Amino acid sequence: MSSTLKKLQVVSPVPADIDIANSVEPFHISDIARELSLGTSHYDFYGKYKAKVLLSVLDELQGSKDGYYVVVGGITPTPLGEGKSTTTVGLCQALGVFLDKKVVTCLRQPSQGPTFGIKGGAAGGGYSQVIPMDEFNLHLTGDIHAITAANNLLAAAIDTRIFHESTQSDKALFNRLCPPNKEGKRSFSNIMLRRLKKLGISKDRPEDLSPEEVKKFARLDIDPNSITWRRVMDVNDRFLRKITVGQGPEEKGMTRETGFDISVASEIMAVLALTISLADMRERLGNMVIGNSKAGDPVTADDLGVGGALTVLMKDAINPTLMQTLEGTPVLVHAGPFANIAHGNSSIVADKIALKLVGPGGFVVTEAGFGSDIGTEKFMNIKCRYSGLTPQCAVIVATIRALKMHGGGPEVVAGKPLDRAYVTENVGLVEAGCVNLARHISNTKSYGVNVVVAVNMFSTDTKAELNAVKSAAMAAGAFDAVICTHHAHGGKGAVDLGIAVQKACESVAQPLKFLYPLDISIKEKIEAIARSYGAAGVEYSEQAEKQIELYSRQGFSGLPICMAKTQYSFSHNAAEKGAPSGFILPIRDVRASIGAGFIYPLVGTMSTMPGLPTRPCFYDIDLDTSTGRVIGLS
Amino acid sequence: MSSTLKKLQVVSPVPADIDIANSVEPFHISDIARELSLGTSHYDFYGKYKAKVLLSVLDELQGSKDGYYVVVGGITPTPLGEGKSTTTVGLCQALGVFLDKKVVTCLRQPSQGPTFGIKGGAAGGGYSQVIPMDEFNLHLTGDIHAITAANNLLAAAIDTRIFHESTQSDKALFNRLCPPNKEGKRSFSNIMLRRLKKLGISKDRPEDLSPEEVKKFARLDIDPNSITWRRVMDVNDRFLRKITVGQGPEEKGMTRETGFDISVASEIMAVLALTISLADMRERLGNMVIGNSKAGDPVTADDLGVGGALTVLMKDAINPTLMQTLEGTPVLVHAGPFANIAHGNSSIVADKIALKLVGPGGFVVTEAGFGSDIGTEKFMNIKCRYSGLTPQCAVIVATIRALKMHGGGPEVVAGKPLDRAYVTENVGLVEAGCVNLARHISNTKSYGVNVVVAVNMFSTDTKAELNAVKSAAMAAGAFDAVICTHHAHGGKGAVDLGIAVQKACESVAQPLKFLYPLDISIKEKIEAIARSYGAAGVEYSEQAEKQIELYSRQGFSGLPICMAKTQYSFSHNAAEKGAPSGFILPIRDVRASIGAGFIYPLVGTMSTMPGLPTRPCFYDIDLDTSTGRVIGLS
Repeated sequence: MSSTLKKLQVVSPVPADIDIANSVEPFHISDIARELSLGTSHYDFYGKYKAKVLLSVLDELQGSKDGYYVVVGGITPTPLGEGKSTTTVGLCQALGVFLDKKVVTCLRQPSQGPTFGIKGGAAGGGYSQVIPMDEFNLHLTGDIHAITAANNLLAAAIDTRIFHESTQSDKALFNRLCPPNKEGKRSFSNIMLRRLKKLGISKDRPEDLSPEEVKKFARLDIDPNSITWRRVMDVNDRFLRKITVGQGPEEKGMTRETGFDISVASEIMAVLALTISLADMRERLGNMVIGNSKAGDPVTADDLGVGGALTVLMKDAINPTLMQTLEGTPVLVHAGPFANIAHGNSSIVADKIALKLVGPGGFVVTEAGFGSDIGTEKFMNIKCRYSGLTPQCAVIVATIRALKMHGGGPEVVAGKPLDRAYVTENVGLVEAGCVNLARHISNTKSYGVNVVVAVNMFSTDTKAELNAVKSAAMAAGAFDAVICTHHAHGGKGAVDLGIAVQKACESVAQPLKFLYPLDISIKEKIEAIARSYGAAGVEYSEQAEKQIELYSRQGFSGLPICMAKTQYSFSHNAAEKGAPSGFILPIRDVRASIGAGFIYPLVGTMSTMPGLPTRPCFYDIDLDTSTGRVIGLS
Repeated sequence: MSSTLKKLQVVSPVPADIDIANSVEPFHISDIARELSLGTSHYDFYGKYKAKVLLSVLDELQGSKDGYYVVVGGITPTPLGEGKSTTTVGLCQALGVFLDKKVVTCLRQPSQGPTFGIKGGAAGGGYSQVIPMDEFNLHLTGDIHAITAANNLLAAAIDTRIFHESTQSDKALFNRLCPPNKEGKRSFSNIMLRRLKKLGISKDRPEDLSPEEVKKFARLDIDPNSITWRRVMDVNDRFLRKITVGQGPEEKGMTRETGFDISVASEIMAVLALTISLADMRERLGNMVIGNSKAGDPVTADDLGVGGALTVLMKDAINPTLMQTLEGTPVLVHAGPFANIAHGNSSIVADKIALKLVGPGGFVVTEAGFGSDIGTEKFMNIKCRYSGLTPQCAVIVATIRALKMHGGGPEVVAGKPLDRAYVTENVGLVEAGCVNLARHISNTKSYGVNVVVAVNMFSTDTKAELNAVKSAAMAAGAFDAVICTHHAHGGKGAVDLGIAVQKACESVAQPLKFLYPLDISIKEKIEAIARSYGAAGVEYSEQAEKQIELYSRQGFSGLPICMAKTQYSFSHNAAEKGAPSGFILPIRDVRASIGAGFIYPLVGTMSTMPGLPTRPCFYDIDLDTSTGRVIGLS
């Protein structure tokens, strides 16, 4: 066992998460880095317990082989969550501390907004957590702040550009864009040359442009009604969901209805999660489409001249943040895109770095947001497609509680006491609910990975109930199904899961089989995914048809599809539990994140800006100013 | 000379700022820290070239004596700026490298917004700069991002609270604020006990409150029209100056007109700059007034239950950031409040830490924003009043260019070529303009400090012009007047200034004489400051009268005054150059930053959200993705 691993002293009943987190003194992050053979030239410190691992590590390790790649998904959850992050962390603690493997946990950075609202942090729970918990949940190393800054610089550039275009002639606009220097000479900046190239104008001296070319170049002619780019803020501020901007007297009546999303919903977050290098990020950021010209052509960040500046704002954010679990195993925290309007997975670069750092025989465990119908599906078809990486094993986290719900148990509502059915033995409900698990297993297996079911055990679960899940899982084709108690016992409680995952990884070696190829139509791709949900067909709204037609015409039909669907059912109807089938999946609208690289059909309405309740959890949060310690965070 | 100081290789003509900045390899910040006797327990790294010095250093050094305290102000500037930051840095390079003194430069953190707009960075210029320049100008260590997050959490809390109050009965509201726990027991959180105390309700069990007390406690009854708290963003986004929020269907028609300021205009920035400890910051943040109840009582962040959470968001921001100059002397960058609606000075805690670190015989040089009529005045009457620190010397930066303008030279406009008068000898204009310098000298002397005039020399200045300034400065009572060439030569060009500052510090030891005591009325304080501008009287608008009456009634009249006035004239009229007198200063409105601790009368309209020009400088900014280096930043 290496020097940074520690044996936990566990207490029963399990104390509050924050108390457990505070009871363990973290290692200095340089100790964690050293165990991964990272030297001080490979990372930058951000305080004592966080470091940004530099992307250049990837170049250095180019020749090294990867470790095993494990993705953690879940069955269709209750609103309480089934412990996917906790299981991800617990599995890694088991692999690292009890099975003596090199291991890295790859997690998403949580949004700061909800930390002060209803939900607590996202660092795992019980004896399977990332620490320090307050640093994990707040600010981290500033990546989300960088996203907010970049997203909003682009937003400001859009409205200001429309404003300036509306008040200036083609010539005046052009003269301002390419002003003479002290010697009276005009020139194009590099980003302007990109636009000229896109327009098919192969001239590089401003004075050579014809009046028509001047107009084409200088006038983006953005259709205000087509703008899809919204502002963002990492705060639960429901009053910004729909706003009118430009009401100041200096903006001369150029008002516009728009709104704010929470920062993690920004396309820039999705870009960060899907990029593979600085050069690639530069291109993706520049290619982000903010809306269309009045002629129907896509207008990009680079057309606005701002792609380079966005990259500069994001240059440090591309480096993943190294942290540690309660038991001293390394964690890379990086990117946290929405799991509905985006793909809900942590970054490709973190996974890539981690796979090199653990090397052959080591393990990288990464979590996919939401149930595996969404999270794992997008992990495979979007994230792995862009990364070129192949997972060997997928873990599916299940709970007796959620299976009972799928078997017909009463509704589970956050904040309300659980019905008796959930805390007393009821094998019948569990067995009936396993149809949900079974479909997640067979869907996941179809990618060519081994599936291990992890039953995240609660103290009220009975042996008969647990056995029922195991049998059902094996019958559905799982490689193994394991009962875990990592919440109560840390890594020790997930040793069996670790062994199963190791065996699963060792006994598979096939390429990833995608659910759909990229070179079929947008509709065919949507329909392939819908079938995996159990749908009998797909129904498109007029708006959806129009958008599909637009994106196809604009040349974007070769992108993968990112379904924005509820996680509470395989279908579009959150109330349909179990394994519904035969339904028609309605596509309300279709949008695109061109820079990030996917089309996202909307199956229902997705909230992209949470609100605060009457009594937000900020009422309990304070600083003990004598110790500098955060209190009341949950 | 200590190990981290370096001799610059200067080139003539002076290259672009970014080229100079990139030509010098910075020291690892631990080397800079070591020269200040800071050990690794005293700071946290943020990458290789930045570290946050922990506030706990102050406790550790409580018994040590302070060094000399020097403030840098300026004459009334042209729109081009007269090189105050550059002189601050150059002086420190001279003191540290050429005069072998312990020295720390204390600077403001610049707003990120303007970096992408018109103005370039704020790291000094020529051979007197803070490096790395891109890190100084972008993100730094996240303090402004923390301010943005905290400011906007409070904003969200306001609108959401009004919304929830509007839809719930007193009892329902109270039950939600104090919900029963699992055992059915209700309790107040600590922050609720603060509110109860403020309301004079000395009960600590929710069930003991009378219905009237329940109403008083649970219903803040905020008057929407009285809300002064705005949202912020560190982006030049003019379309957010005036907006309507709450237009989403879920907000049920509860729309409200409001707007965004740039983040550095947030009261939280002023709090950061004026606080002296974590405990003090907690109180100031909790005491921030966001508006009034319908009964006219001030409503604070603590009334909303969010003062603790704001402190948690700001807990790392309170630690100043250590950086370095081109010549390897240490710099503390911390806080950057507006110089009109706020006091425009870097933080008290940075200055305090720096004074202990340099110790007796060492120097701390801190810059005050704007001309000294505003910057130095607020440094003395607000910042030093709260810090208890006493400066020994004030530097006033002057240029021949600005003095000629004050002597009657033609208008100076940014972006347009300078008139011939400014680039050829004209001693008469210079002499006439020295009335402006003379008033700044006598005003500054009245605080009990020695005044050293630093003439920031340009290549077109002539000997006769420079001599004219020296004579006029000495005649006006300056301790010394020195010609400096630090822009072209680095610290070497400011050696004479360093010697003069040293002598000035050594030959004075008197307490600070404030311009006004705190225990006179708001109007009397305003009038004392107006007289220092040369005004014959003050005129109040009806709105100003109303606000003065309100703040006096609310018990805030004992606060210092922070005038929001143009920096381009002693008077309210930017066009009045020289040393105008006899005018009546108009007070348009009066506002207050109660948490930060000042009342700010508005003398004219202050823009708190800049815009982007037709061709923002982001067109030139990009990342060289092969090296990771920022290009095009100016």
